[in-house]
Amino acid sequence: MSFKVLKKCPDTGARRGVLTTRHGEINTPIFMPVGTRASVKAMSPEELVNLNAEVILGNTYHLFLKPGMDIMAKAGGLHKFMGWDRPILTDSGGFQVFSLSSLRKITKKGVHFASHIDGSRFFLGPEESMSIQRTLDSDIVMAFDECTPYPADYRTAEKSMRQTTLWEAVSRDQKLNDGQQLFGIVQGSMYKDLREESAKSLVDIGFEGYAVGGLSVGEPEDMMFEVLDWTVPHLPEEKPHYLMGVGTPGQLVESVARGIDMFDCVIPTRLARHGSAYISDGTTIPVKAGRYSEDFTPIDEKCDCYCCRNFTKAYIRHLLNVGEILGMRLLTLHNLYYFINLMREIRESLENDTFNEFRANCFNK
Amino acid sequence: MSFKVLKKCPDTGARRGVLTTRHGEINTPIFMPVGTRASVKAMSPEELVNLNAEVILGNTYHLFLKPGMDIMAKAGGLHKFMGWDRPILTDSGGFQVFSLSSLRKITKKGVHFASHIDGSRFFLGPEESMSIQRTLDSDIVMAFDECTPYPADYRTAEKSMRQTTLWEAVSRDQKLNDGQQLFGIVQGSMYKDLREESAKSLVDIGFEGYAVGGLSVGEPEDMMFEVLDWTVPHLPEEKPHYLMGVGTPGQLVESVARGIDMFDCVIPTRLARHGSAYISDGTTIPVKAGRYSEDFTPIDEKCDCYCCRNFTKAYIRHLLNVGEILGMRLLTLHNLYYFINLMREIRESLENDTFNEFRANCFNK
Repeated sequence: MSFKVLKKCPDTGARRGVLTTRHGEINTPIFMPVGTRASVKAMSPEELVNLNAEVILGNTYHLFLKPGMDIMAKAGGLHKFMGWDRPILTDSGGFQVFSLSSLRKITKKGVHFASHIDGSRFFLGPEESMSIQRTLDSDIVMAFDECTPYPADYRTAEKSMRQTTLWEAVSRDQKLNDGQQLFGIVQGSMYKDLREESAKSLVDIGFEGYAVGGLSVGEPEDMMFEVLDWTVPHLPEEKPHYLMGVGTPGQLVESVARGIDMFDCVIPTRLARHGSAYISDGTTIPVKAGRYSEDFTPIDEKCDCYCCRNFTKAYIRHLLNVGEILGMRLLTLHNLYYFINLMREIRESLENDTFNEFRANCFNK
Repeated sequence: MSFKVLKKCPDTGARRGVLTTRHGEINTPIFMPVGTRASVKAMSPEELVNLNAEVILGNTYHLFLKPGMDIMAKAGGLHKFMGWDRPILTDSGGFQVFSLSSLRKITKKGVHFASHIDGSRFFLGPEESMSIQRTLDSDIVMAFDECTPYPADYRTAEKSMRQTTLWEAVSRDQKLNDGQQLFGIVQGSMYKDLREESAKSLVDIGFEGYAVGGLSVGEPEDMMFEVLDWTVPHLPEEKPHYLMGVGTPGQLVESVARGIDMFDCVIPTRLARHGSAYISDGTTIPVKAGRYSEDFTPIDEKCDCYCCRNFTKAYIRHLLNVGEILGMRLLTLHNLYYFINLMREIRESLENDTFNEFRANCFNK
């Protein structure tokens, strides 16, 4: 068993666990910084280690296009290529094929598409996705799914979910490298019976972990939580539960309460590059704004990150204002620290049986 | 005496020295990374300390425009503003007024100009430059000079040099903060008698250090060295000698041999952002080139920097190719390490009486 639930919250679905991989342990609940193109944007691997990032995500679609699998195979996989020796999870490429590429043609075998970079034609299906993720040699591999558009009518959602189930079964049949773990992805849009059917079908196939996909695609936040309430109870308790592409600090806490163990999201890094910094109450401030030009206090007085220990809003605002790279670096570092630290606090509250209080008060500082 | 010559090379003009400032000692010969807008581009102060950068340069012209002196005064100076507690040298703004701004009108008091950012009108003369550098509270202040264009005919160069001498005398007359040291700047274009006259006039005024300005402006390299041969012998031996805006690794070694103690240059940081990395023989390689796409060796096998210890050319090439910030970061770090380490090797060779051999062989690795 690679996953162990160490402790359960008696009042909610929240769990404190450990997922063991070939590259070390991951303490859950965990936030995974996104390293789309073999780099967590603006960060060095050393900084990620110092931030105590225990696992990062790489994107199959992007890495397939650039640098391409010839180079990745010769490099000996993604860990060696990017100089990261902690766990890596790779997605299946499905989401990006559906959200980034063009001229898509879907067959039973997979998707023909044109690269968003130069229009070159490619084909990606479950066999190809598993082959790429074998070459990347990630620790956690995601099954190939179709990302159902939102909103989708019932018939579209049903057809898409069943296609996903078939592709995930094919994914399961592919040989992976020793020690690679395969996670299935529940789809079914915003329909309770489809989510249930998807979850049950995947459990029948059998995976090392289960993800909830197709959320954070524009639906109201309440609906996201409702889908989790429908779905998570049908996932095996003894396996890790991963909510893909979510979310805000508040969404992370609420999803943990619904039994989610793993998260990834571009929010902290993307907002940083747009000049927004997270503060104690779970919201962001626009550091580039003129009102901070003479504010010689840190972004967050209580934050212990390198940015807040050493630099003022006035300085970071100046850096952003003149386009200095250090500005984006410092905000990225701060926001990632914020997310990673929030998950650490969640884990501690679960260990101390104080998750309920933490959930109620964590953004009322 | 804030400057001490510890050792002299018996065969050349090279010296090993220590310059003491309010923010610590600077071991010479030294290379100063350029932090134009209160940031050495792409680097954090922590990385600069780890690179053993003992002093950095800030640009008066840029900081005067942004963030402006109101903010800088409220921040308590440049050190506090940018979180750097080692020595800082600021230039006078003269060079940038002449190279970046437009609509210049020169009077005896200084220069009227339009900002290169938004065309706003400003005035900068020796009184203003000293006032700004007091507000920046740098450790080493540069006198205000006119940067003579190149090439310049004799009459133009003579007039410009004499204007500079007058402005430098006015600079000397201004009150500075306790412990701030003022350096004069020798001008005189490529004319021996003008360089001599300028040096002698400045020595008469009396400064804590002497810089050679107006070089690396497009003249042949031999001419740069010739100007140093004319100029340095007229500078006080017991004061530091600073060659402004120079240069390539080879130029640094040759200028040290002619008695130069301090250097600043944007070459290592600027070339890094354009994808070029320095290697042992003193040249650069274009890491973005396709021929490195499957080169899984470091930029320089013998280099001990974070970049060369952890990453391959193939990875950095990929980062540059897809526009990931980490690519520029790693090359900037490597190139700065190269320059700082070169100066360390020069200092060691002076301590060990092996400068001549070092000079002859340092790029024949």
